[in-house]
Amino acid sequence: MNRLRELAGDDALVFRTNFTSSTTPEPTFLSSDVVFGNVPAHWFEEKSSVRWVQLESVGFGEYRHLDRICKDPGFTLTNLAGFFADPVAQTALAGILALYRGMDDFSQMRTQKSWIGSSHRRSLHNLSHSNVLLIGYGSINRRVEELLTPFHCNISTFRRSDSLAHLDQQLAEADIVICTLPETDNTINLFEVSRLSLLKPSSLFVNCGRGSVVDETALASALNNRTLAGAVLDVTDNEPLPEDHPFWTTPNTILSQHTAGGTNDEMDQKIEAFAENLKHYRLGNAMNNCVDFERGY
Amino acid sequence: MNRLRELAGDDALVFRTNFTSSTTPEPTFLSSDVVFGNVPAHWFEEKSSVRWVQLESVGFGEYRHLDRICKDPGFTLTNLAGFFADPVAQTALAGILALYRGMDDFSQMRTQKSWIGSSHRRSLHNLSHSNVLLIGYGSINRRVEELLTPFHCNISTFRRSDSLAHLDQQLAEADIVICTLPETDNTINLFEVSRLSLLKPSSLFVNCGRGSVVDETALASALNNRTLAGAVLDVTDNEPLPEDHPFWTTPNTILSQHTAGGTNDEMDQKIEAFAENLKHYRLGNAMNNCVDFERGY
Repeated sequence: MNRLRELAGDDALVFRTNFTSSTTPEPTFLSSDVVFGNVPAHWFEEKSSVRWVQLESVGFGEYRHLDRICKDPGFTLTNLAGFFADPVAQTALAGILALYRGMDDFSQMRTQKSWIGSSHRRSLHNLSHSNVLLIGYGSINRRVEELLTPFHCNISTFRRSDSLAHLDQQLAEADIVICTLPETDNTINLFEVSRLSLLKPSSLFVNCGRGSVVDETALASALNNRTLAGAVLDVTDNEPLPEDHPFWTTPNTILSQHTAGGTNDEMDQKIEAFAENLKHYRLGNAMNNCVDFERGY
Repeated sequence: MNRLRELAGDDALVFRTNFTSSTTPEPTFLSSDVVFGNVPAHWFEEKSSVRWVQLESVGFGEYRHLDRICKDPGFTLTNLAGFFADPVAQTALAGILALYRGMDDFSQMRTQKSWIGSSHRRSLHNLSHSNVLLIGYGSINRRVEELLTPFHCNISTFRRSDSLAHLDQQLAEADIVICTLPETDNTINLFEVSRLSLLKPSSLFVNCGRGSVVDETALASALNNRTLAGAVLDVTDNEPLPEDHPFWTTPNTILSQHTAGGTNDEMDQKIEAFAENLKHYRLGNAMNNCVDFERGY
């Protein structure tokens, strides 16, 4: 808060943190010029003086239907595109290595005071020279690619412009699939049962995009039937994961509970990203990460 | 076994796998020229025709006291120096990322069907730009250094020739300490209570060397008292770890149960290393990884 006061200088500054999505708009919101944070979408249905909102997320789906935001040339929405790439890529690698090097098993063994030792060696894998398929090639998977450099993996990529036939071919060859796709009309249920069945039984599926791109029932079956060796899931279709969801008990599954973008200094870093855009805003310059609603990300 | 038969060609080949350290030497051992594997040390106390032993380990401490092995110019002992560097370095990184990115916690949460989600983000860390101190700078830590390249860490190294005063200075600045020291007269109990106390409360201690280099009681206290943030221990002084050992319950501790060198294709790879040395042996050329008993590793 001190850093934000420092940034505000002589401008009026109001902090609000305890609103819920059901509340009516804060009067101070309606009379503000600049907003930092993800306020409830319906607040934009009332006339306000807001000219710029800096989101503290990459996603902006909840604002997509609002004319006030999408079509008003005097209004700018900026997000934190790229901001989470490094930590998310690190969680993806952490999850892959947790499965390849047994960390998930060792965690369970320690709880049970069970020493398996050398007989567990043959269930471990070497990440070096693996075939890795990056699905989506934005800031996260570009960072994943960097982190994988010393492992000399064979990396292939699938982008929006590639054909699904090409995707299916790549899936059949991959040791590790890392998906960072956002939810769009084209990505929902992309990994349906027949597409998941193309994966090798020895392969890992990593999802750092959106849970809705995968048929979760089919994915859980593949894990239970050992037609898939493991999954690292930062995202699920419903969060929190319902208590009766199969992912709580499927083998070789890591649930990182949508924390992959998180770090202990996350809020400080977000404030610095806002600070930089505030400088541009005050000078009337172009800001970083203006949301493109047509592109959808 | 087929690959070994292929390598033997017209030479006589004998397989023995079920001996224990208490058994008398196999007669076929005594009449062999070449041995592949870690046979009981006392077998060398009897006169034999063995001229070369290819160990399937890096360590050779159990053979150190045997004149037959150390001083006979007609005998060669080769080990697998460097062989395990890549998987061990991967386990070290897997353990660090498991603690920094919450994998160890998420594993426990899944067992308990506990969804903590976003509130866990502030306990996660970004590995990028960390201060990493590599203690020992052989093949393992050189590979660790490669794997850390994309994280742009500030890496410093401590080698045998450096002073302990220099080590103590480095320990106080490290976010992550990665020890790969073997057991020698100079390394036993190197990390005694006062030296461990130099570490920052936010730091991680990783041991892929030998358990005896650390005062385990002091390490367990540091973890329990939160004067150390976490530990990744591939090795412990007693393996299997005794049931009443504090490491079973210290917080933020990963026990990889001396598996760090393991991979599913480990035996195949070991046979290929033996095959290469066998080629040299047959041609009378210098072999790879001849053990230097004076140096001690």
